[in-house]
Amino acid sequence: MRMLILGADGYLGWPTAMDLAAKGHEVIAVDNYLRRNIAKDTDSLPLFENPDLKERAGIFKAVSGKDIKVEIGDLADADFALGLFEKYKPDAVVHYAEQPSAPYSMRGFDEARMTLNNNLNVTFNVIWGALQHAPECHIIKLGTMGEYGTPNIDIEEGWLEIEHKGRKDKFLYPRQAGSLYHTTKVLDTDLMWFYVRTYGLRMTDLMQGPVYGLQTAEADMDERLGPNFHYDDIFGTAVNRFLVQAVAGVPLTVYGKGGQTRGYLNLKDTLQCIDLAAKNPAAKGELRILNQFTEQFSVNELAERVQKAGNRMGLNVQIKSIDNPRKEMEDHYYNAAHSGLMELGLKPHYMTEDVLVAMLERIVEHKDAISKDRIMPRVRWK
Amino acid sequence: MRMLILGADGYLGWPTAMDLAAKGHEVIAVDNYLRRNIAKDTDSLPLFENPDLKERAGIFKAVSGKDIKVEIGDLADADFALGLFEKYKPDAVVHYAEQPSAPYSMRGFDEARMTLNNNLNVTFNVIWGALQHAPECHIIKLGTMGEYGTPNIDIEEGWLEIEHKGRKDKFLYPRQAGSLYHTTKVLDTDLMWFYVRTYGLRMTDLMQGPVYGLQTAEADMDERLGPNFHYDDIFGTAVNRFLVQAVAGVPLTVYGKGGQTRGYLNLKDTLQCIDLAAKNPAAKGELRILNQFTEQFSVNELAERVQKAGNRMGLNVQIKSIDNPRKEMEDHYYNAAHSGLMELGLKPHYMTEDVLVAMLERIVEHKDAISKDRIMPRVRWK
Repeated sequence: MRMLILGADGYLGWPTAMDLAAKGHEVIAVDNYLRRNIAKDTDSLPLFENPDLKERAGIFKAVSGKDIKVEIGDLADADFALGLFEKYKPDAVVHYAEQPSAPYSMRGFDEARMTLNNNLNVTFNVIWGALQHAPECHIIKLGTMGEYGTPNIDIEEGWLEIEHKGRKDKFLYPRQAGSLYHTTKVLDTDLMWFYVRTYGLRMTDLMQGPVYGLQTAEADMDERLGPNFHYDDIFGTAVNRFLVQAVAGVPLTVYGKGGQTRGYLNLKDTLQCIDLAAKNPAAKGELRILNQFTEQFSVNELAERVQKAGNRMGLNVQIKSIDNPRKEMEDHYYNAAHSGLMELGLKPHYMTEDVLVAMLERIVEHKDAISKDRIMPRVRWK
Repeated sequence: MRMLILGADGYLGWPTAMDLAAKGHEVIAVDNYLRRNIAKDTDSLPLFENPDLKERAGIFKAVSGKDIKVEIGDLADADFALGLFEKYKPDAVVHYAEQPSAPYSMRGFDEARMTLNNNLNVTFNVIWGALQHAPECHIIKLGTMGEYGTPNIDIEEGWLEIEHKGRKDKFLYPRQAGSLYHTTKVLDTDLMWFYVRTYGLRMTDLMQGPVYGLQTAEADMDERLGPNFHYDDIFGTAVNRFLVQAVAGVPLTVYGKGGQTRGYLNLKDTLQCIDLAAKNPAAKGELRILNQFTEQFSVNELAERVQKAGNRMGLNVQIKSIDNPRKEMEDHYYNAAHSGLMELGLKPHYMTEDVLVAMLERIVEHKDAISKDRIMPRVRWK
């Protein structure tokens, strides 16, 4: 298949591009380095440097013999985005190309405005690129479990049949997100569903939970091919923050009560999920929604897992609750379905102690580069 | 109260500005003439000319002695929009300022893109104007009944309690709109609800059905103060199209089977609803949603009402079904709640034969100006 990977410089984009190229697909990797630029502007540089996309593609070619074509440009720009669809007429598109930081989107007016306009326009251009130049193409869009928020009922996979006053209909599962970034993904979903049902596009929306991990078959071939690793409050996940705090010898900072429960998955499983979605495309006019995570646990449980792995390495890890910078429920019901990808064949890699120890060992190598200023929350919701 | 009326040059905006000024409020009327410009560009001029906002404000001052301040500018422009909030620190805002045509939004890429960006950015700027300069201000936003689409269950007023697998929660009522324009209003709702619940804004979302009528207490004082009257396929409603067709001696064009059912209301009732909402502001952190219409009927019933009124005037009105240019259900369940505004005190003006005859008489005065080319659908969804 000819596949466009949009947002290919990202934590998930680059490993995805390599994985699909290794599997024999013709891969075009697209990015405008938005995340790198925000990271520079907000003092949120990753723990170790990653070569740029063209350099990485060159290294990958040298070690694997496989090609990844690179296109640098802004997908929110209609001429560039639609031009790509016209030029490549892809069979499938993997759309990761959004400003992905919740705290950044909550920092102030300019950041909120950029996040809204960037994310909506990229999605809009992807829809129209397909409509105008590749109507049969399968659009694989990365949504987020965060779109659902933390409702008091079970979370289903994207859709919900509702019975009301003796009548029934099926609707998008209610969405109520906790940041402007997550809200832009809700808006994406509304927009995509409108165009999918009106014009018969094929679309899969992968509602992903937080992803962790640094290892993939291709990343392990050369250190310079590894994904980026952010531990700062802007781009870092709670997993990465805890791991770096364990190595830096500072307490793991749990936000508030720590009962916030989410569904997590290993980077290796993201690659499996994308591959499974691509192999099983959505039908014409179908917005197929799959919840993409393999296990759910609370922030407290996550901290305890990291503590246990760290202590195995002799790190003497402490855990400390701090005032929650976010507006979110800290103690809530959470039970989310995630059988769709398992039915397609997903074989999960769970967050074992060995997996966490392997990540900690990698971080220890870069211990001197840790900047503690980047770890504590600099953006507050309130 | 000091009130900003955004989109004050529109069919509803101008009568609202006059009504609120007549009631003694300090009114600032804001517009950038977007509708007028689109009307020129698409050969969709109204049946008779309306003076521009400044001229109308002058005429209104002369006949009523009341002031309406006018600000011309683009509310999608952050500097202009936030500047208005800083300058006036309003007690209430009435937000009509969107590209309001469904067919225009479905015309092609450029029109869709403009509609998405214009409507979302105006709403975003209104939210941030309030957040930064008038956090206690009551934002009265015009939504549309079209956000709900035509679900197979009863439509409630904005919210729905859902019971699922033995647990309960309350969510935004599911939304699934029939055009990109209507979808931008769904996106508005998601965006507003995020900011309202996160920062404690006060907001009322009025989910309005199609409005008809040319008469209001102030419009009747001078012909030049009347609202605009579009009968074209871009800005005209089915009501206006049928009335003009009756006068022009061509059959009333029902799209498809004509079972499309909607909730309608009289322009006089829109004014009442805005006034009632303003007198009863939403609480802090509340997104109050009210369904704003007074009676529901199908397109076939609407055509028959116009036919009956026209025949009373000796017009010999015919009705003809034509191929539906839209993608919509033509025969569906429809039962929408609308008790909230009645409970606040709304006294409906129904679509009686006298009301339709009064509109027909006004159109007869301008019969020679009718351009039949503007009536038939020029935009197709498919």
